[in-house]
Amino acid sequence: MNIQEHLAKVSQYFSPKVIGEVNDVYVKVAKIKGEDIPWHNHANEDEAFFILDGELLFEEEGRDPFMMKKGDFYVVKKAVNHRVSSAKECQIMLIENKSTAHTGEVDAPITKSIQDQLD
Amino acid sequence: MNIQEHLAKVSQYFSPKVIGEVNDVYVKVAKIKGEDIPWHNHANEDEAFFILDGELLFEEEGRDPFMMKKGDFYVVKKAVNHRVSSAKECQIMLIENKSTAHTGEVDAPITKSIQDQLD
Repeated sequence: MNIQEHLAKVSQYFSPKVIGEVNDVYVKVAKIKGEDIPWHNHANEDEAFFILDGELLFEEEGRDPFMMKKGDFYVVKKAVNHRVSSAKECQIMLIENKSTAHTGEVDAPITKSIQDQLD
Repeated sequence: MNIQEHLAKVSQYFSPKVIGEVNDVYVKVAKIKGEDIPWHNHANEDEAFFILDGELLFEEEGRDPFMMKKGDFYVVKKAVNHRVSSAKECQIMLIENKSTAHTGEVDAPITKSIQDQLD
């Protein structure tokens, strides 16, 4: 299925949706607009970001903030605090372990369960 | 890093290059042109294909061949025989377990070691 069809079905910001299962990993798409994602980390899990459209401000502990643009690919390593935000809508692909909670241990207003991401 | 920069460094067809490590998974880019990939499967591992540019003819045992186009995403499940080919250059992203041999158990002329894919 085309990624655009998957994205068309995403009606909420900060609400990742699983588009594929590759062994222990979920591939997801999400739309980001605003600053609702809290600082968080994933103690034991790396997380990959691929920008499908728009721009994503990436903040990561220990380095300067950087702007990710369409086609940019970045992996935040396990246990590293980070957050992402976007002034305008940004469309992303995520590659995460099935066990990864998208806001880490932080229970934020935007936090979604894995079940919600599979629906 | 932008995916275009990664792709610019790929000088050979059928020669996947690792662009990121996400726990037990490698994310790779590759360029496909021709029909050099043999039928193969990965006994224990799913494999995801995402088309970055061009078109990829996907043949999979048990279903009709289908053409993947830019933005199409597809996961071939473990143990399912498949092969991909392209008349013109096609640029793809792959999501594979680190243990996945890109031509499965088949040792083809184009088969590359994981070390070669990391160089």
